[in-house]
Amino acid sequence: MRLATLRVRGETRAARLDGDEYVLLPYADLGALLAEGEHWRSLAERQEGDRVAATDAEFAALVPHPNKIICLGLNYATHIKEMGRATPEYPTLFAKYDGSLIGAYDPIVLPVVSDRVDWEAELGFVIGRRARHVPKEAALGFVAGYTVVNDVTVRDYQRRTREFLSGKTFEGTTPVGPVLVTADEFGDAEPDLEIRCEVDGAVMQRSRTSDLLFGIADIVSYVSDIITLLPGDVICTGTPGGVGDGRDPKVYLKEGQVLRTVIEGIGETRNRCVADQTT
Amino acid sequence: MRLATLRVRGETRAARLDGDEYVLLPYADLGALLAEGEHWRSLAERQEGDRVAATDAEFAALVPHPNKIICLGLNYATHIKEMGRATPEYPTLFAKYDGSLIGAYDPIVLPVVSDRVDWEAELGFVIGRRARHVPKEAALGFVAGYTVVNDVTVRDYQRRTREFLSGKTFEGTTPVGPVLVTADEFGDAEPDLEIRCEVDGAVMQRSRTSDLLFGIADIVSYVSDIITLLPGDVICTGTPGGVGDGRDPKVYLKEGQVLRTVIEGIGETRNRCVADQTT
Repeated sequence: MRLATLRVRGETRAARLDGDEYVLLPYADLGALLAEGEHWRSLAERQEGDRVAATDAEFAALVPHPNKIICLGLNYATHIKEMGRATPEYPTLFAKYDGSLIGAYDPIVLPVVSDRVDWEAELGFVIGRRARHVPKEAALGFVAGYTVVNDVTVRDYQRRTREFLSGKTFEGTTPVGPVLVTADEFGDAEPDLEIRCEVDGAVMQRSRTSDLLFGIADIVSYVSDIITLLPGDVICTGTPGGVGDGRDPKVYLKEGQVLRTVIEGIGETRNRCVADQTT
Repeated sequence: MRLATLRVRGETRAARLDGDEYVLLPYADLGALLAEGEHWRSLAERQEGDRVAATDAEFAALVPHPNKIICLGLNYATHIKEMGRATPEYPTLFAKYDGSLIGAYDPIVLPVVSDRVDWEAELGFVIGRRARHVPKEAALGFVAGYTVVNDVTVRDYQRRTREFLSGKTFEGTTPVGPVLVTADEFGDAEPDLEIRCEVDGAVMQRSRTSDLLFGIADIVSYVSDIITLLPGDVICTGTPGGVGDGRDPKVYLKEGQVLRTVIEGIGETRNRCVADQTT
């Protein structure tokens, strides 16, 4: 099953893909659907509502206001090498705030204060059930499904201090979507999918999600010993090698460029880089 | 004016202190009051409701579900020295999730997975108006008021990876409250207040909030260039020297100990350390 959060008449609505149409569900967004409890899947499957042609769908961030956005750093060997870091013994966790999230085809807002904006294609996943002190063996049962994320990063802000957060949470920079592919579509196992990132059609990153150092079950179990995971929480699993900052010479995103992030079997985000117009 | 979020019959309610009573306001919590818009102050001042004797008040986390909890690291010279860090050129920002927040007199949940739990007394402040690209000169106008925070930290998790987050967001560890003292009570200027932390009555930290490297206006202005600050956002300004991990020998919080955090003119939090009972 494929679920999304669509923009409909100035609001957002959860939706289920049915053939070439989205069925609008009676929830403000995917997060509200998942918050209904463990029967969210049957609620999503069974309910009927107004329909929108898939070609007319306008995608909001998949979960626009998750309780938590948890990101993994340094989780592919190729990216650890290009950034000159040591292989970590534990998952490196950092946060984003929801103001950084955008829809799958929304523009990426280039900051006023930096021209060092870089890409990080990532497999994202969304929590489907409250998870606390979950053993690794049971952890995949708490995953609602998978999506595409680009953890767009402002490199100079990331490195200004010893904490990544500043460079990771700029307003309107992080596409998430377009859809959640529910975990059962991957046999409730860790998906092994090609992940690819392109800038104006040139392939910059290409890897497989099976190359993650800490896999999905590792992450759910580890985080659940720290804090309770809640339905709708978005977890970004880290990026493979090929970021602009790891190249020689370094390259960064420029106004007008289009960033495309593709995960086999899930879909793609496609975002044009625009100047910051916010005040 | 002093505002709080109280627990009332299984729910929470925003409240205003009036003499020795709290007046319950028609908002689910302080965050919901601030989200009403720029007239939140007059709404809070004028409305009447049921009353609770201050001595009977049960305090929830001051803002139980802020859109953002933004923390400053390395923001007092004395703490930078004891942690062996360099003086930063820019504010060091990291996040917490709201599952870590507790009320002013709630127990601190000691993690199952660590016995390295340490204190960090901090001045907290809460945003009162949407703030985006705010110059430093105007920044204090976006502050609703001030409160007491203890950024309780799990030191081994803080140091396991290169990111602080894991050690900073353990479930049920971070007291915030009991009250917001509105900014006008400090003449809408940066408050210069004694801040103190005690463990079982022994003074462990004592400093003044005027010793902050990056002050309130600096922080609001800096963050607002990264992301939009929203009403109810909680910002924790960093801790002075005297943490347990900076001592020789190092000391950490133990079950049964009481952590008291006092800021002159605002109030105090007082939290007993208990074992994790969550599942």
